[in-house]
Amino acid sequence: MNPQEAYDELVKRSRELFTVGTINALVGWDQRVNMPPAGIRQRGQMAAYLQEMAHRKQSDPRIGELLSAAEQGQWEAGPAANLREWRRDYDQATKLPPGLVRRRAELTAAANNVWQESRASNNFGAFAPPLAELVSLSREIADHLGYEGERYDALLDLYEPGLTTADVDAFFADLRRHVAPLLERIVASPVKADRGLFRNAEFPEEAQKSLGLAVTRALGFDYAAGRLDVSTHPFTTSFGRGDVRLTTRYDRVWPFQSLMGTIHEAGHGMYDQGLLEDHEGTPLGETVSLGIHESQSRFWENNIGRSRAFWQYWYPRFKEEFQGLVNHVTFDDLFRLVNDVRPTLIRVEADEVTYNLHILVRFELERDLFRDALRPGDLPGAWNEKYQQYLGITPATEREGVLQDVHWSWAYFGYFPTYSLGTVYAAQLEAALRRETPDLDWQMAAGDFSAAFRWMRENIHRHGKQYRPKELIERATGRPPSASDYVAYLTGKYSEIYRL
Amino acid sequence: MNPQEAYDELVKRSRELFTVGTINALVGWDQRVNMPPAGIRQRGQMAAYLQEMAHRKQSDPRIGELLSAAEQGQWEAGPAANLREWRRDYDQATKLPPGLVRRRAELTAAANNVWQESRASNNFGAFAPPLAELVSLSREIADHLGYEGERYDALLDLYEPGLTTADVDAFFADLRRHVAPLLERIVASPVKADRGLFRNAEFPEEAQKSLGLAVTRALGFDYAAGRLDVSTHPFTTSFGRGDVRLTTRYDRVWPFQSLMGTIHEAGHGMYDQGLLEDHEGTPLGETVSLGIHESQSRFWENNIGRSRAFWQYWYPRFKEEFQGLVNHVTFDDLFRLVNDVRPTLIRVEADEVTYNLHILVRFELERDLFRDALRPGDLPGAWNEKYQQYLGITPATEREGVLQDVHWSWAYFGYFPTYSLGTVYAAQLEAALRRETPDLDWQMAAGDFSAAFRWMRENIHRHGKQYRPKELIERATGRPPSASDYVAYLTGKYSEIYRL
Repeated sequence: MNPQEAYDELVKRSRELFTVGTINALVGWDQRVNMPPAGIRQRGQMAAYLQEMAHRKQSDPRIGELLSAAEQGQWEAGPAANLREWRRDYDQATKLPPGLVRRRAELTAAANNVWQESRASNNFGAFAPPLAELVSLSREIADHLGYEGERYDALLDLYEPGLTTADVDAFFADLRRHVAPLLERIVASPVKADRGLFRNAEFPEEAQKSLGLAVTRALGFDYAAGRLDVSTHPFTTSFGRGDVRLTTRYDRVWPFQSLMGTIHEAGHGMYDQGLLEDHEGTPLGETVSLGIHESQSRFWENNIGRSRAFWQYWYPRFKEEFQGLVNHVTFDDLFRLVNDVRPTLIRVEADEVTYNLHILVRFELERDLFRDALRPGDLPGAWNEKYQQYLGITPATEREGVLQDVHWSWAYFGYFPTYSLGTVYAAQLEAALRRETPDLDWQMAAGDFSAAFRWMRENIHRHGKQYRPKELIERATGRPPSASDYVAYLTGKYSEIYRL
Repeated sequence: MNPQEAYDELVKRSRELFTVGTINALVGWDQRVNMPPAGIRQRGQMAAYLQEMAHRKQSDPRIGELLSAAEQGQWEAGPAANLREWRRDYDQATKLPPGLVRRRAELTAAANNVWQESRASNNFGAFAPPLAELVSLSREIADHLGYEGERYDALLDLYEPGLTTADVDAFFADLRRHVAPLLERIVASPVKADRGLFRNAEFPEEAQKSLGLAVTRALGFDYAAGRLDVSTHPFTTSFGRGDVRLTTRYDRVWPFQSLMGTIHEAGHGMYDQGLLEDHEGTPLGETVSLGIHESQSRFWENNIGRSRAFWQYWYPRFKEEFQGLVNHVTFDDLFRLVNDVRPTLIRVEADEVTYNLHILVRFELERDLFRDALRPGDLPGAWNEKYQQYLGITPATEREGVLQDVHWSWAYFGYFPTYSLGTVYAAQLEAALRRETPDLDWQMAAGDFSAAFRWMRENIHRHGKQYRPKELIERATGRPPSASDYVAYLTGKYSEIYRL
């Protein structure tokens, strides 16, 4: 078989696997958005069937043969990137012994149950043994996958290709140095958002939805190729670039949760919609990494959606949509409310400034676990110390502390840093965009958000997996990834708001 | 391999095929209920992938081997029924040469396009050539499938196992004799429903939905194992007995379309929900035929939902739900409106009395086509003659006549009679139910619909495919299928309403 034939068959197989993936995504979306309770039994059959089919396709030895044949060819950058990514996927799917994969599935299923009970009963002790098993299993996995620097690198690479512990350490060095002190100054500032302003208001779901649709449509999400629905935990999923589904949830007493969440999901969704049709079903038509994906959601949610210019345009519409409920809220009130910073214990409720400090805690703990510098049983104490150190508060219970996230029960070690990368990348992308578009704020204040949308289409979306994440950021911004734009962004913005 | 081993593997394969079917059903449901327009391209890939997979599983030669081995065993009635149905499915999937199956797929795709254009341009001439091809193809198909009596039997059997042309002829003989004259007397009656009563009303969608949910819940549809959504063409689909989805559409000026349609779909849905969990994924856990399925929807829609006792209970709720809009509508007004009979040209808008006359026309035309007693090119004239004969009206255009239904463009010859069977079976089931429950009307007028629900669960739903349709009806009612209960039902009910 010549390399071109092998390549063509790989494309065909890649597209088929993509189709199975889109079906699986639909089965999952419907389960979370529509399924009646009694549907769960057969739904489990559907999901298991599709996952087994996907796994069989991914690890088919025929792919190994095709890759070996195709890799003999001389390829342009595009096909070469496809081959690189297929190789990566195939190696990941086949490097782990089947017994290990099965053990991971069994252990995580069991550990997730224990975690739910431990959290409900506020008892880390019950979760410690399965957690220790998962850490030790993940060590084995890392060793099978291989790494150059340290063992944790192999786990980071699973979620953000090419990311190393040293990279993350360097990112967080800036955060440790600048953001924790910034937070201290914000907490000490006499300026405060007035959360009591909505004390007696109830925000109708219909109006919240109408505003969320209007805003995300204006930002660039295409509802002819997508939808917005309701689910308990908001998420975005895609069945191809022509069908991208966002979800949100509506809180009747606090209208920003749904609005900012919808903008966040639309950021993910615009990325999914911006992939190139010609490459659909191959790596060149796939999003590049979790970190880059999160850069898109955070960019639209925070850098745009919590900016002064954005609200200059949307403030009147906000008042109009919630007639009577918010007439007494001035622009400054509103702007402080959407940028209200305060240290809290729960990551998923955190603001822009404290968010990465939550991640910093988790990263340092995971890093130390995999350096054998921390035992799983010692996590609660270490957790509380770091919360005190970086956020100035200590959880009163394990439920509000070390037991709050689901990730470890799934053995998702190395995942948390991608959340921070997203915010850091977002700031770096925004800085580059502003260098090219000096009047961005004027445009946005006039309701024109197209510059940012076009810039992301051009510099991020259309590239699919052509470049690895770090390279993509460097090509888009002219600089290697670094946290300096992020620190500057936070410091500048919040110094002004809190008059520091 | 011993028969038991073969049987067990057949069960496993049957369940897997069922799971693929439920996934396929979800992909189809979502396409009709949720999919944004740009999703259609990838959706086609998803559906094609699943259909190919299902077809490969159905026609896997291994099934033939397993069947031959299992058929050597001595089986109780249940497993024997499973084997009978698997054999039927396997033979149907393998009797047709692959070339013929492909030609049917290509021809129907093309013919459906031509039909859409022909209907839009009101020009049967353009549709006649592909229709002639489909008739001739269906002749070939019938010959491959085989039949004892006449060729059309093989096509009827595809949709209603065991049904013959002679059966349908016998059914329709009663209709020709009694229903056409009944319609003439109704048309001549001075009693009329007053459609002008809602002249200025607009019925809010929310209130229509609330009423539809309340009614179908009271009848027995379980919303913990189902949903009600909106689609252009209402339908019911099932992803297993725990997840049954109904759809409806809301007409703001005519509240009965949605309500009666929702009851109809809930009738289908209650059947799907009433299959036995232990048999799910095997024929004993499947609905028996299109005709029996339609008997359930028609029973709840017409025999129950258009009955006096039903409305005695729901009339106050109807007025309450549409406050102010229907205060002037008396019970008698309302009852005449839901039982308004008038000959019209369009089948899908037909009332209970005229509906089967529409089907009679189609049956006679199909029968004659497959007896070579009618040429496809002569359909428009024959259609119009029969409408004049049975309904007393003649279509002014082909669009309102011979071009109105999609079925022939899909080569669904032999399908229409199942609609009539449903109404005929429904009346026979109702008569049997009433023999056992003399105070049924008293119960229903008091809001208790459980007797009919329990009776259907006991006599129809739980049996799955244990019995062939005719046998099931005979077991349930103590009599072989016949149209006499149906004629008696129509005559009695409408003589009273129209004071004939």
